[in-house]
Amino acid sequence: MISNREEVTQLILSAKVRKGIKWGAVADVVGLSKEWTTAACLGQMTFDKEQAEKVGELFGLSDEAIAWLQVAPYKGSLPTAVPTDPLLYRWYEIVSVYGTTIKELIHEEFGDGIMSAIDFSMDINREEDPKGDRVNVVLSGKFLPYKTY
Amino acid sequence: MISNREEVTQLILSAKVRKGIKWGAVADVVGLSKEWTTAACLGQMTFDKEQAEKVGELFGLSDEAIAWLQVAPYKGSLPTAVPTDPLLYRWYEIVSVYGTTIKELIHEEFGDGIMSAIDFSMDINREEDPKGDRVNVVLSGKFLPYKTY
Amino acid sequence: MISNREEVTQLILSAKVRKGIKWGAVADVVGLSKEWTTAACLGQMTFDKEQAEKVGELFGLSDEAIAWLQVAPYKGSLPTAVPTDPLLYRWYEIVSVYGTTIKELIHEEFGDGIMSAIDFSMDINREEDPKGDRVNVVLSGKFLPYKTY
Amino acid sequence: MISNREEVTQLILSAKVRKGIKWGAVADVVGLSKEWTTAACLGQMTFDKEQAEKVGELFGLSDEAIAWLQVAPYKGSLPTAVPTDPLLYRWYEIVSVYGTTIKELIHEEFGDGIMSAIDFSMDINREEDPKGDRVNVVLSGKFLPYKTY
Amino acid sequence: MISNREEVTQLILSAKVRKGIKWGAVADVVGLSKEWTTAACLGQMTFDKEQAEKVGELFGLSDEAIAWLQVAPYKGSLPTAVPTDPLLYRWYEIVSVYGTTIKELIHEEFGDGIMSAIDFSMDINREEDPKGDRVNVVLSGKFLPYKTY
Amino acid sequence: MISNREEVTQLILSAKVRKGIKWGAVADVVGLSKEWTTAACLGQMTFDKEQAEKVGELFGLSDEAIAWLQVAPYKGSLPTAVPTDPLLYRWYEIVSVYGTTIKELIHEEFGDGIMSAIDFSMDINREEDPKGDRVNVVLSGKFLPYKTY
Amino acid sequence: MISNREEVTQLILSAKVRKGIKWGAVADVVGLSKEWTTAACLGQMTFDKEQAEKVGELFGLSDEAIAWLQVAPYKGSLPTAVPTDPLLYRWYEIVSVYGTTIKELIHEEFGDGIMSAIDFSMDINREEDPKGDRVNVVLSGKFLPYKTY
Amino acid sequence: MISNREEVTQLILSAKVRKGIKWGAVADVVGLSKEWTTAACLGQMTFDKEQAEKVGELFGLSDEAIAWLQVAPYKGSLPTAVPTDPLLYRWYEIVSVYGTTIKELIHEEFGDGIMSAIDFSMDINREEDPKGDRVNVVLSGKFLPYKTY
Amino acid sequence: MISNREEVTQLILSAKVRKGIKWGAVADVVGLSKEWTTAACLGQMTFDKEQAEKVGELFGLSDEAIAWLQVAPYKGSLPTAVPTDPLLYRWYEIVSVYGTTIKELIHEEFGDGIMSAIDFSMDINREEDPKGDRVNVVLSGKFLPYKTY
Amino acid sequence: MISNREEVTQLILSAKVRKGIKWGAVADVVGLSKEWTTAACLGQMTFDKEQAEKVGELFGLSDEAIAWLQVAPYKGSLPTAVPTDPLLYRWYEIVSVYGTTIKELIHEEFGDGIMSAIDFSMDINREEDPKGDRVNVVLSGKFLPYKTY
Repeated sequence: MISNREEVTQLILSAKVRKGIKWGAVADVVGLSKEWTTAACLGQMTFDKEQAEKVGELFGLSDEAIAWLQVAPYKGSLPTAVPTDPLLYRWYEIVSVYGTTIKELIHEEFGDGIMSAIDFSMDINREEDPKGDRVNVVLSGKFLPYKTY
Repeated sequence: MISNREEVTQLILSAKVRKGIKWGAVADVVGLSKEWTTAACLGQMTFDKEQAEKVGELFGLSDEAIAWLQVAPYKGSLPTAVPTDPLLYRWYEIVSVYGTTIKELIHEEFGDGIMSAIDFSMDINREEDPKGDRVNVVLSGKFLPYKTY
Repeated sequence: MISNREEVTQLILSAKVRKGIKWGAVADVVGLSKEWTTAACLGQMTFDKEQAEKVGELFGLSDEAIAWLQVAPYKGSLPTAVPTDPLLYRWYEIVSVYGTTIKELIHEEFGDGIMSAIDFSMDINREEDPKGDRVNVVLSGKFLPYKTY
Repeated sequence: MISNREEVTQLILSAKVRKGIKWGAVADVVGLSKEWTTAACLGQMTFDKEQAEKVGELFGLSDEAIAWLQVAPYKGSLPTAVPTDPLLYRWYEIVSVYGTTIKELIHEEFGDGIMSAIDFSMDINREEDPKGDRVNVVLSGKFLPYKTY
Repeated sequence: MISNREEVTQLILSAKVRKGIKWGAVADVVGLSKEWTTAACLGQMTFDKEQAEKVGELFGLSDEAIAWLQVAPYKGSLPTAVPTDPLLYRWYEIVSVYGTTIKELIHEEFGDGIMSAIDFSMDINREEDPKGDRVNVVLSGKFLPYKTY
Repeated sequence: MISNREEVTQLILSAKVRKGIKWGAVADVVGLSKEWTTAACLGQMTFDKEQAEKVGELFGLSDEAIAWLQVAPYKGSLPTAVPTDPLLYRWYEIVSVYGTTIKELIHEEFGDGIMSAIDFSMDINREEDPKGDRVNVVLSGKFLPYKTY
Repeated sequence: MISNREEVTQLILSAKVRKGIKWGAVADVVGLSKEWTTAACLGQMTFDKEQAEKVGELFGLSDEAIAWLQVAPYKGSLPTAVPTDPLLYRWYEIVSVYGTTIKELIHEEFGDGIMSAIDFSMDINREEDPKGDRVNVVLSGKFLPYKTY
Repeated sequence: MISNREEVTQLILSAKVRKGIKWGAVADVVGLSKEWTTAACLGQMTFDKEQAEKVGELFGLSDEAIAWLQVAPYKGSLPTAVPTDPLLYRWYEIVSVYGTTIKELIHEEFGDGIMSAIDFSMDINREEDPKGDRVNVVLSGKFLPYKTY
Repeated sequence: MISNREEVTQLILSAKVRKGIKWGAVADVVGLSKEWTTAACLGQMTFDKEQAEKVGELFGLSDEAIAWLQVAPYKGSLPTAVPTDPLLYRWYEIVSVYGTTIKELIHEEFGDGIMSAIDFSMDINREEDPKGDRVNVVLSGKFLPYKTY
Repeated sequence: MISNREEVTQLILSAKVRKGIKWGAVADVVGLSKEWTTAACLGQMTFDKEQAEKVGELFGLSDEAIAWLQVAPYKGSLPTAVPTDPLLYRWYEIVSVYGTTIKELIHEEFGDGIMSAIDFSMDINREEDPKGDRVNVVLSGKFLPYKTY
């Protein structure tokens, strides 16, 4: 009996290590970006039926698990409000240190509103650099102005 | 008497509103990007002497305030661990929802290590889109592999 | 010297009690709903120049305060993550008790996505009832589907 | 052995996914609104004997589970004080951003007191809109004035 | 300039110590119970005009302070979620140790619902006892059943 | 193997629902008040041998579980510092809103000290009222003055 | 204007450093132990009129401050729930490491109940030791058994 | 398979209740004080081989469990930073209320430094008293002066 | 089925106690420092294939566990933000007490930037001392200057 | 009027920036290491009379401020339990990531006990390195074994 999506994420992670599957390969099977596909496998996005079946076949999941992949999950992937993992903490730190800067510059350019985290995409790539390669990340979110009424 | 950088940030913010100065204009005076310059004005980066004097002149700061601009500040710009402001919360949410995805994909590409938040730059721009303009943000951080010893 | 919007909110609240002004009257002067206008006066929304001047005149604010009313504020109006005030706590409780219900029903009707809190309006009214009048609140937020990419 | 209502909620959620049951269909069987019925299935309300038996039949629950559906549960459906799920966070954000506004307007209309979260109902519907459909939610709670004694 | 009720509470507490006024005497002047009157003086209840003027005269408050006494305050009188003061902690402890007991017994007697903290009164008295006098507190709150809809 | 009292509480709650036992009936068997008996069954008080055996017989507990009922438990019955359950939250709210009032009035009557939560009893009853029945709770705790030394 | 006891504690601490007064000397003037007297000066106990006047004279306090010394204070002397100061942390650590031990041994000797922190005294002394002098602390608190009713 | 000391503590507690063993008897077998022995059994101290074997025999532990008793445990015996159990809370309260007093008096007698919680012993005894027996606790910790360098 | 690295750490710790293996011996087998090797065994670093196989053989791990040793783990080894274990707390205390000192001195020597915790090594040794041996720890982290852009 | 050491730290920091004094120069004047001297100036250590006067002269402090420098301060230099400043966070991260490693290795070498943070010294230096200079920190703390009694 599976009673939440988290259990399916555990099944996927376990199968991934046992079978040595790469996220890039999962994305190829699903036919979407590696960012969205990985997030969905990690229990943060909802697959449609066809995608869920492909993912299920790749990881060897039961029909019940495949059904859960099509249910909108309770999102949020971190165990604590401030992440302890150093890679993730650096992202939290960017929000902490640059937070007010981001806010000022978006408002200066667009006025009052937000950058959507729903109508949003992310692209993570290697940026070659003779002084040491860099992680290059492009975030693109629709600007949503505050509505006046 | 000024006893911390935060007080200088308050002076800058107050002068900015009174004088109607734009962050873009400050960056032009300093000669660096609007992202770094704004972060520095908001108390997150350290100006060198020449930069501090230009900023001081623009905002009408005292010599004591200008001296504080050259002291490495205690960083972190948000009043609470989880920001309440909706624009900033969306960034926190991206880290929360996509956190494990970011971690998996960076490790898959680079191995164990982190994306630096120090040897780091950020570029925020308007991305025109007929369905509604988007905020486009490019983050670039050096990959730092965990050292074995 | 004013260095944040919060100080302007304090000035408005103080003037409101001294002068006995009603929020409904402020809304009439501004020409928008009482909900949006009150939120803006309480430091959660941004006035345009004309609105800010009307509000400034009504509450007797300085030019500097009026300038701050036109700056996008750091939002979030509660002093603690879980509000102690009983009226506000009941709203928090609705989110706590009905949270998973709201999530299930929106997803059942719309699929995975959210109800926007930005492209959003709220209308609070008295609902007469012989067993005791009721507070009737209508919330309307655009449904934003999660983007696949 | 079942020792709390949460375990019954897990059984219902698991059966719901396996059997592909909709909340609307459960509400039809119970004969009450989809909002109250879903909340009750999710462990936030108490069924009477007849309702519990109908729900038990639909989801294939044991007699022991059906008995637990008739016990007043420990309420509160969220795993953390500030919800991480984006759909739920937006509701928390509405309370955070509009909290003081809601408080001011209810007091202006009704005097000191609260809007009940017990003598309360909620109605969630699709509001068709050419610019994108909206989630329309009507909350109705009895006003309870503070008693003087 | 007074910008919140808390400042008025400070004025009352200061005057109370300077003038040696007893809460019982304030209640006599206001014409209500000592429990409600003290709570109102401590910024938790709203006075009407006549009451506020009597309280203002007794403590020597300004017209502005008297106006604030008639504004519904942001309630919650404790500086931390778990009170450090031993007298108050014992009350928190009663809720902590007897909480589930209170819940079980009210539900057993009344069914699902709550004891109101709004339609509520409290009476604190000395209970003489040869083994040491006792504090006797009577709490009376209307039972509010959960509404089915 | 049972390694803490909490497990015995789970056994009692499970048996109570399966067998449809009322707390009042347990109190009759034990020969003490329903308040103390319920608290003890919920893992907050210590039974003596005779009481534990009666309780064990009623709920069908093993000898090991009966032995644990005679061990002083780690007390505190709530899963979070601020309870999410609405019935329990109202009690927390009474402490929050009336806390400073309770403190002032006990000190005014008794001087510095506390109302004991150990030499303490509680009595919960229905108070019939034509406008809706009320929950009437009498708390009685010995006043303990601070010792001077 | 003084509006809380904390301000008087600040006045005492400031005068103590300026005048070089020792706690032992304050205790001699008051005629009680150094432990109780120091706690009272630090805002944790209530002086009677005569004691307050002696303390007021010693530290040069105003009549208003002396009046506040006779008001039962809001107790709890630490700025955070877990103290950061190393000397105080070691005491917190003793409670953390030995907590369950203390509980087991008091219950084994006395049955279920507590050691009072109100009918309580503390005595701190130097214990000479050739391997390094020790701090010797004697705590004495009345055992209060849980009442059955 | 045992993977942490906590599991061994659970085994000891379970055997203690089943077999009706007293902590005093354990201390006699180990040949050390009841305070140290109990703390060690509760997973806060490290037994040597001979002691561990004696304890293992008394409680009927496996060789693997006996091996774990000789491993330095992760210390800290309380489930929450502020303990909810009333007996333990009183100890926390003593640190909270008397904390600054303890700090002042140790510094007045010894200068800057701490009372060790490592080179430390505790002795808990019954203090007979006609007004009600008392818990008498003697704490002895080496004074450690802050090193200058 | 293994679904996270933590489970492998538990297997290693259990085998270590059962087999009486020393960390120094593990380091010898792996051919790296005892500090890095221990951290990796405790789930904080990533082994390469050859290292993982050696560790697996030593502790008797399955192929699946050995595969997990080569996956970059979610780092952070402490159960709470402020560690309760006394040995670990002292390290937290050093950061707390000396934190601002460390910051000032690194900035005075190097300018604004950080000491890397990634390009980092640690060496822990016994420092013999007639007054009692000392723990000598050498930390070496690359200085990373904040980038200007 | 100065009522705590924190105010003196603010005076020192303000004077340091105004006068451009280096920590190394303060250490030379005091005649101790730069680490201890800086910590003391930042309110974490206690100066003796002679040292305090030298420091007072250098920073231009009043006699009252100089008196406060000789009072043992309430220690802990960070504004939040988890520091937001990146330089300090890296230190917190070292404790978080390497915490269990440090514990295991100290216990393996010394047995159960701690590394003292009181009988402790720290030495921070530049370590020249062609791949980028490093921060080299030597921590030396006396090992304190847990006492058996």
